[in-house]
Amino acid sequence: MKSEKLTNLSELGEFGLIDTLTKDIKYKQKSTIKGIGDDAAVLQGRPKFHSLVSTDLLIEGVHFDLTYTPLKHLGYKAAIVNFSDMAAMNGKPKQIVVGLGISAKYTLEALEELYEGIRMACHLYNVDFVGGDTTSSKAGLFISVTVIGEVEKPQITYRSGASEGDLICVTGDLGGAYIGLLVLEREKRVFQANPNMQPELSGNDYVIQRQLKPEARVDIVDLLKENDILPTSMIDISDGLASETMHLCKNSNLGCMLYEEKIPIDQQTFDLAREFKIVPTVAALNGGEEYELLFTIKQSDYEKIQKLADVTVIGYMTEPENGKRIITGDNLAIDLKAQGWDGLKSRDIDSALNG
Amino acid sequence: MKSEKLTNLSELGEFGLIDTLTKDIKYKQKSTIKGIGDDAAVLQGRPKFHSLVSTDLLIEGVHFDLTYTPLKHLGYKAAIVNFSDMAAMNGKPKQIVVGLGISAKYTLEALEELYEGIRMACHLYNVDFVGGDTTSSKAGLFISVTVIGEVEKPQITYRSGASEGDLICVTGDLGGAYIGLLVLEREKRVFQANPNMQPELSGNDYVIQRQLKPEARVDIVDLLKENDILPTSMIDISDGLASETMHLCKNSNLGCMLYEEKIPIDQQTFDLAREFKIVPTVAALNGGEEYELLFTIKQSDYEKIQKLADVTVIGYMTEPENGKRIITGDNLAIDLKAQGWDGLKSRDIDSALNG
Repeated sequence: MKSEKLTNLSELGEFGLIDTLTKDIKYKQKSTIKGIGDDAAVLQGRPKFHSLVSTDLLIEGVHFDLTYTPLKHLGYKAAIVNFSDMAAMNGKPKQIVVGLGISAKYTLEALEELYEGIRMACHLYNVDFVGGDTTSSKAGLFISVTVIGEVEKPQITYRSGASEGDLICVTGDLGGAYIGLLVLEREKRVFQANPNMQPELSGNDYVIQRQLKPEARVDIVDLLKENDILPTSMIDISDGLASETMHLCKNSNLGCMLYEEKIPIDQQTFDLAREFKIVPTVAALNGGEEYELLFTIKQSDYEKIQKLADVTVIGYMTEPENGKRIITGDNLAIDLKAQGWDGLKSRDIDSALNG
Repeated sequence: MKSEKLTNLSELGEFGLIDTLTKDIKYKQKSTIKGIGDDAAVLQGRPKFHSLVSTDLLIEGVHFDLTYTPLKHLGYKAAIVNFSDMAAMNGKPKQIVVGLGISAKYTLEALEELYEGIRMACHLYNVDFVGGDTTSSKAGLFISVTVIGEVEKPQITYRSGASEGDLICVTGDLGGAYIGLLVLEREKRVFQANPNMQPELSGNDYVIQRQLKPEARVDIVDLLKENDILPTSMIDISDGLASETMHLCKNSNLGCMLYEEKIPIDQQTFDLAREFKIVPTVAALNGGEEYELLFTIKQSDYEKIQKLADVTVIGYMTEPENGKRIITGDNLAIDLKAQGWDGLKSRDIDSALNG
């Protein structure tokens, strides 16, 4: 039997820890002049490109639950969340810096898992891991990721660029990440009630993957460019379709009309939502952490967008006086309400699981 | 009597909070194309400049103690720490993004204090506050700051550029931030033992300011350029003079010879160190959070550097075989030891205050 020795972080010290965690890191981007190992990373912008910067903080007990989140997945997701912000500007991630606050309970091996997830995301998305800060925390794990990206100047897409009549499009399918969270929470409660029970996760792979290992739609940035479509406005869906649509409306000073029946929902998401007694489109409208892209295009691009299998037109932008509305399956026009992802998580997980 | 209403954060929600905190933010840098309000900040690099990126995480109970750290000072220091990293590359800070994790105990007014400190630092150093992430935490306050800066390509200074015989220089004076921390810890203990006692901080203003409101030596970057001095290697002193000197040696693959009697120490630091029964140069060698710059220059720049009142030559780089050594006041050459700032804080504050 192989004995696994776990390494206490205090044996290594901060510099030893950083050396160990970063020893295999390689750089692929030409714009990375100097990565880890000095007071700052050194980058080189390109004249025809804008640089993009975005930051996210993930906190144990708020953004993730280590009971069912493997550390490798957590590292992967922490990176993806930020890559998605670059796609939402119609750009691409190029470098990240990572701040880690870790309590004494973590071993070197646990942190290596976390780093492995970050490195895997960087490898798949061609992003260089160029710096960071590692420190102790009194309690819990804190991950701060800042991503630097770039976008060709004429391609940059803000939230504010939509015009009246522009078509509202969404990538992939929605609601899965929320339903995946409900499955994980249900199994956690079963396990807490009876630790001898095995979690029943099989058959629910798609929604669990949507929650634990989401992807950033950087591929869509290429796809739109190849098909000569320049979105007029764009945002990524981290806080629910309803909330993000309202952001585009607010920033572009417009109203909108969505069609409930057009919202793309995967069959597994749909079936499980019914099992949890949730209207599937409610999960799609309010479930966050999808990292799909929501964007608007000119009506003249309708034929081009129709050819793209992974993009669905779900409505259109209106004059602001129309308000922000959705046509339900019963053909009623009602006001769009954004309950928001944090609200949904805290209030409704209990009722979905107990109801 | 004016009644002060404190605003609970849950009344505002995340978007309301961000709107409130960021409403007065203005941008001064030409390179800031778009700041707060989209999925990412949009920046424009300049062809003859490198971009610099650095990140730091500050955690309550580890990096700061809110018993004696006003939130405005904390915000100021969180920004300064990062600006200092830009100076350490011989560059200047241009933009920052800030991640905040906050527990329910904080009011809007408390966060406004924190932001006010960050804004004040940005104003004084001409830095644009271009983005962030605000989220709840289960316990305590977490601040993650990422700074973006720039440096003219020929001016960039790494830790690794020193040569044998180069002179080792330091800015300002050292040890004050550590002695300031001891004063604050002493008064905290007096207060804890007897809450009716008033803290005795007067007369210790200089060392307290060194601890609570340090500055980043971006002025030195200009001063060196005006005097036509290009440092061969540089680092900022966040972890103690001994530790940072050893970093320059390691990165440049050299040894060093320091002179204890040359280390600049302020009179108030000196007197208080004696009061705490600490050898003043020990505070200077191991006390961190100074944010002074440590750099090397060619011997041929000696006359130029002598004219600069705020820079002291404290030794020189040697061949690696010499080791890393310091000539003591008794004229003995001993090995330089880096106990490091975190170690010094946790082990020695107790002994200094009880001894």
